[in-house]
Amino acid sequence: MTFDALFVPDELREAVADEAWLGGMLEAERALAAAQGIELDVGDIVISELVEEGRAAGNPVEPLARRLRARNPDAHRGATSQDILDTAAALVARNASQLIVGELDGVAACCAQLADEHRSTLMPGRTLLQQAVPITFGLKAAGWLVGILHARGRLEAARLPAQLGGAAGTLAALGDEGADVLREYASRLDLPEPVVPWHTRRLPVAELGAALSVAGGWVGKIALDLVLLSQTEVGEVREREGGASSAMPHKRNPVGSTLARACALRAQAEAGVLISALAQEHERAAGAWHAEWGALSDALAYTGGAAASLRRALDGLEVDVDRMRENISPETVGDEDHVGAAAAFVDRALEAYGRG
Amino acid sequence: MTFDALFVPDELREAVADEAWLGGMLEAERALAAAQGIELDVGDIVISELVEEGRAAGNPVEPLARRLRARNPDAHRGATSQDILDTAAALVARNASQLIVGELDGVAACCAQLADEHRSTLMPGRTLLQQAVPITFGLKAAGWLVGILHARGRLEAARLPAQLGGAAGTLAALGDEGADVLREYASRLDLPEPVVPWHTRRLPVAELGAALSVAGGWVGKIALDLVLLSQTEVGEVREREGGASSAMPHKRNPVGSTLARACALRAQAEAGVLISALAQEHERAAGAWHAEWGALSDALAYTGGAAASLRRALDGLEVDVDRMRENISPETVGDEDHVGAAAAFVDRALEAYGRG
Amino acid sequence: MTFDALFVPDELREAVADEAWLGGMLEAERALAAAQGIELDVGDIVISELVEEGRAAGNPVEPLARRLRARNPDAHRGATSQDILDTAAALVARNASQLIVGELDGVAACCAQLADEHRSTLMPGRTLLQQAVPITFGLKAAGWLVGILHARGRLEAARLPAQLGGAAGTLAALGDEGADVLREYASRLDLPEPVVPWHTRRLPVAELGAALSVAGGWVGKIALDLVLLSQTEVGEVREREGGASSAMPHKRNPVGSTLARACALRAQAEAGVLISALAQEHERAAGAWHAEWGALSDALAYTGGAAASLRRALDGLEVDVDRMRENISPETVGDEDHVGAAAAFVDRALEAYGRG
Amino acid sequence: MTFDALFVPDELREAVADEAWLGGMLEAERALAAAQGIELDVGDIVISELVEEGRAAGNPVEPLARRLRARNPDAHRGATSQDILDTAAALVARNASQLIVGELDGVAACCAQLADEHRSTLMPGRTLLQQAVPITFGLKAAGWLVGILHARGRLEAARLPAQLGGAAGTLAALGDEGADVLREYASRLDLPEPVVPWHTRRLPVAELGAALSVAGGWVGKIALDLVLLSQTEVGEVREREGGASSAMPHKRNPVGSTLARACALRAQAEAGVLISALAQEHERAAGAWHAEWGALSDALAYTGGAAASLRRALDGLEVDVDRMRENISPETVGDEDHVGAAAAFVDRALEAYGRG
Repeated sequence: MTFDALFVPDELREAVADEAWLGGMLEAERALAAAQGIELDVGDIVISELVEEGRAAGNPVEPLARRLRARNPDAHRGATSQDILDTAAALVARNASQLIVGELDGVAACCAQLADEHRSTLMPGRTLLQQAVPITFGLKAAGWLVGILHARGRLEAARLPAQLGGAAGTLAALGDEGADVLREYASRLDLPEPVVPWHTRRLPVAELGAALSVAGGWVGKIALDLVLLSQTEVGEVREREGGASSAMPHKRNPVGSTLARACALRAQAEAGVLISALAQEHERAAGAWHAEWGALSDALAYTGGAAASLRRALDGLEVDVDRMRENISPETVGDEDHVGAAAAFVDRALEAYGRG
Repeated sequence: MTFDALFVPDELREAVADEAWLGGMLEAERALAAAQGIELDVGDIVISELVEEGRAAGNPVEPLARRLRARNPDAHRGATSQDILDTAAALVARNASQLIVGELDGVAACCAQLADEHRSTLMPGRTLLQQAVPITFGLKAAGWLVGILHARGRLEAARLPAQLGGAAGTLAALGDEGADVLREYASRLDLPEPVVPWHTRRLPVAELGAALSVAGGWVGKIALDLVLLSQTEVGEVREREGGASSAMPHKRNPVGSTLARACALRAQAEAGVLISALAQEHERAAGAWHAEWGALSDALAYTGGAAASLRRALDGLEVDVDRMRENISPETVGDEDHVGAAAAFVDRALEAYGRG
Repeated sequence: MTFDALFVPDELREAVADEAWLGGMLEAERALAAAQGIELDVGDIVISELVEEGRAAGNPVEPLARRLRARNPDAHRGATSQDILDTAAALVARNASQLIVGELDGVAACCAQLADEHRSTLMPGRTLLQQAVPITFGLKAAGWLVGILHARGRLEAARLPAQLGGAAGTLAALGDEGADVLREYASRLDLPEPVVPWHTRRLPVAELGAALSVAGGWVGKIALDLVLLSQTEVGEVREREGGASSAMPHKRNPVGSTLARACALRAQAEAGVLISALAQEHERAAGAWHAEWGALSDALAYTGGAAASLRRALDGLEVDVDRMRENISPETVGDEDHVGAAAAFVDRALEAYGRG
Repeated sequence: MTFDALFVPDELREAVADEAWLGGMLEAERALAAAQGIELDVGDIVISELVEEGRAAGNPVEPLARRLRARNPDAHRGATSQDILDTAAALVARNASQLIVGELDGVAACCAQLADEHRSTLMPGRTLLQQAVPITFGLKAAGWLVGILHARGRLEAARLPAQLGGAAGTLAALGDEGADVLREYASRLDLPEPVVPWHTRRLPVAELGAALSVAGGWVGKIALDLVLLSQTEVGEVREREGGASSAMPHKRNPVGSTLARACALRAQAEAGVLISALAQEHERAAGAWHAEWGALSDALAYTGGAAASLRRALDGLEVDVDRMRENISPETVGDEDHVGAAAAFVDRALEAYGRG
């Protein structure tokens, strides 16, 4: 991720860093051991060493399992590398998703406030970027809000389950205890227990990808509206922290919205990898699985980056109510400034927000 | 769609054809009129004429509305072109989705039967396409089944709502009746009523896209497994209707699986357009909306084509139980043919199927 | 393709229709026969029958070959289905590309004229959609022109070669004559001869996809600029044939640009299938090859549709020179209306156009 | 990039790291200064500080320019942030591309050796993963080779030009010297000089994206063939350094091919961002430009990672010539082991390699 600190909040970057994945792997190994009545002595594990050694096996769990077994003969018992890595992915995704949800909550609060405050603020409605009949800014913000509520709910529902299947998904190495160990393992990790191991049934990953793509894409839509409303010739909103230009000190660029759009583009591309990687061979894919790891981290990071940047843009957004009214082309207005059901729609959106 | 009859069942092709879209548009106009106490005299409408004339306006509804108004002065009252077209999309998608669900049901039934029958059929488990420990063919089919149940449920839940917002989403032209007309309109069409018009809040379209991509992708995974199992050197399954070759009469190609994979690739690309088209400007997009129409039809058609082709592959699939057992490399087997929790997982999958 | 006549010129739709593919297949079969000294009696072939029967074999060439052999025992000798279909694709692509190039030429002519006429027309330069220092409209049009020249050249260079490899790429059925027949076959079809048959070395298809994606994407950029310049609040350009609205007669929508953007989105998605379908198994892919056919037709159609729609937008574009100057924010102008090397860059672009 | 050291060679990771981008920015600033007769005193610049401070402006060049101007009043004269960052991208891409080309050269050498050595090694040809007539392994490797030569040539040709346009592409701040400074700037950097500044004419970036996608996709195809040939039931090749499994010590996984496929998937997704980001607004995009930076780094890294992993797989590949012959199904063989023009095609490929 080039210049990642410019796009993604620090906390979120840490939540998807290699160290966080190691944390997830160790949590999985500990839960697996505990489910079998074993307490694990982990010792010092350095993730960069695992990654380097992992080149030979094609994943970092094989060297981790070797280290653990050296101290605990029964460590990693019953598991295959993918079990540990998929479970780590579930834990990383859970933590990162909570951070993203926090950013979306901040965005929703801003939208709700704008919808409420600008319930009666007239502005041009624009279709195909031509002025149509007037709307209210409250209605526009209410639409943003409803979408954020959708995206937030969708992301919360997209939880990756625990993974435990052993060498080929039968849990054969656990004898007759397989199903019990799986239940205990999932329970200790507080992760959903799958009906059947999902080694190559990657629907949970694809659904998380879809949720991230939807969230990122929707954040991008709001940012697009903000960029358009911020145009010099429109001038209806202005980001409080608008950015300076190295060549033109007078400019105040819509930086938050711009970075949000950039992050949204990246998020949707990374999430696309997760959705299109469903076709995985037999009981473990030769490549498509490995491609998920980084795509998942990046999709989480960029979706969160998009939400955080949009929040920055909306927080304290300067709304030029006079300019909005002045911009309305007389020919687009009828006898009166009638805006139909706009206020009712704002109420419906705020009610949904209150329920949320 | 080149050679579309080769990929997509006739009924599904009709369900997304221009005539079906016209049917949806007329149903929307009728419901809009009826919600205002008007009965519509439609006359003869030829979709090809609407499309040709629609070049000027950028959509086929404008010429349709002109025709309807010529016979019914109050036709199309309160609506904008997008209202009618989006509602038509909702109706087209509903009908086509039902056909896809029907195909997925057929696939699920095949998978359930295979899971049940082959609960004890040993075969090699394969990771990175190398033999790992043995599994059962029942377990493999159970995994397929669980995924199909997921995809089916997801698709059924992804319903597009009715659309009615008028020129810019306020329903201003309907005076104080806007919200009531919207409710009545949605009710007559038996479509969900949105909280707020969704002109540019395209989350329902994106979610439908995600559901189709997930369904298509999962069908592609099963087809991939079938193609791999059908390899000459593996020979564990064979499609009953395997295809002939123009150059080699002795071959029996896995044609159903092959066409399913082709359709899955196309379906995911078309669905991707629907997901990535979230960034739509202000109250109507200048392009991204227009790109949805064909992408929606094609995503529906190809997802259904994928499911239908897979169903053809699975229906009467010849399973070579002896070959499965013979293929197992001795070095991958322990003391016994132990397959752990495989049977339990099959039960869990079949139970989920029974509940579904 | 839903409402395809609204997006794609008639001639181009015909150039990629199933009948055109049949024409290509017959041309390939004739050339193959002729290269072996055989004259082919084709008889009446109905493409819809081939497609329907082709469901069994997975492609429409197998039933075609059967028909041809019934009249000509030596027809199709040495070829496999893919040879004929890939060669048909090459012919379809060549014809359709010429039509696209014709549309791009029209766009280039418009851009060149605008660049020349508006060499000194001042307008705001806009970065992040905020006014920066002034530029000239000529410079903007010159940039458009240079990109079109690039896209045009790229598309012309992306020619699919003839395909002839026989059952698995060795031309074994042609005995020792294989290489000679291939040369003669390619020569008669006036298609490039490949170094080695490209059954699963799909780089020519991917390159054509890249060329179409680049062309479509660039057309989309110009259309985006036009849509932004056409905004009510900007009003610097106006499409001559701007479209009416069904709800608001006063509007003049940028329909050409809008349809161009829609087509560009679709074109890039279809072309993406061609680029990402490189991973094809062994000597013939089980699915990825079949996915190319429709994606190729659609990528050609939508790229051409994008170019044709943009041409319509640019042809007779109304440029409001006064508005351009008035829009310039005083704070963005220095001592004088200095636009640096703008005129020199226009000259360079027009020179490149003259050379092209 | 999660576990990036597992996928991407160290040298390539360094070539696209933030520090490398800083190196490129400084080289650009130095060249710009030198082109105006200024020698730059750079001082100590820490990239992480630039990125952190760059959040406000939306890019890291603004804080860099401030630092440089503090020591050199005339630093950054005539440039805008994008000039420096795009030029840095050109330099980063040039360096990284050379590393990728080096890996592709290694792959080509392996393919050429295999093609030459196995000119007469019979093996099954496989279409739709069913055995067709026999081919030679030499022919298969020759096909791989021709594709690598194509990908290599394409990547070498895709060079990003120098960028210098000033605030809005007119070089206005350089007075009448603009064109001269641009020429000198490009010359000092040994980068192509553009006809017109390419701020939002992102065709060079899209073309580089296409070249990387083509290279990555082709590497993925070869890796796919290797994975299929390595299957337990096929056993025709084996990677020398095949990987161990944490659960099954007896396995030898095709790790190089697997990682190559994973990298190829990521590379194509990142490159797709570069291709689809063509639609950039006016004289600087509000988001699409910013999305390019990381996508470019990642596309370069993963394409190189794919090539390096494939090289590892091919280097010392164990080819089981006996197994290849034994695998041939008798029914697919005619009177003799005739493989037609296979040897001639090998010669043609090797000749192209020799010319390359």
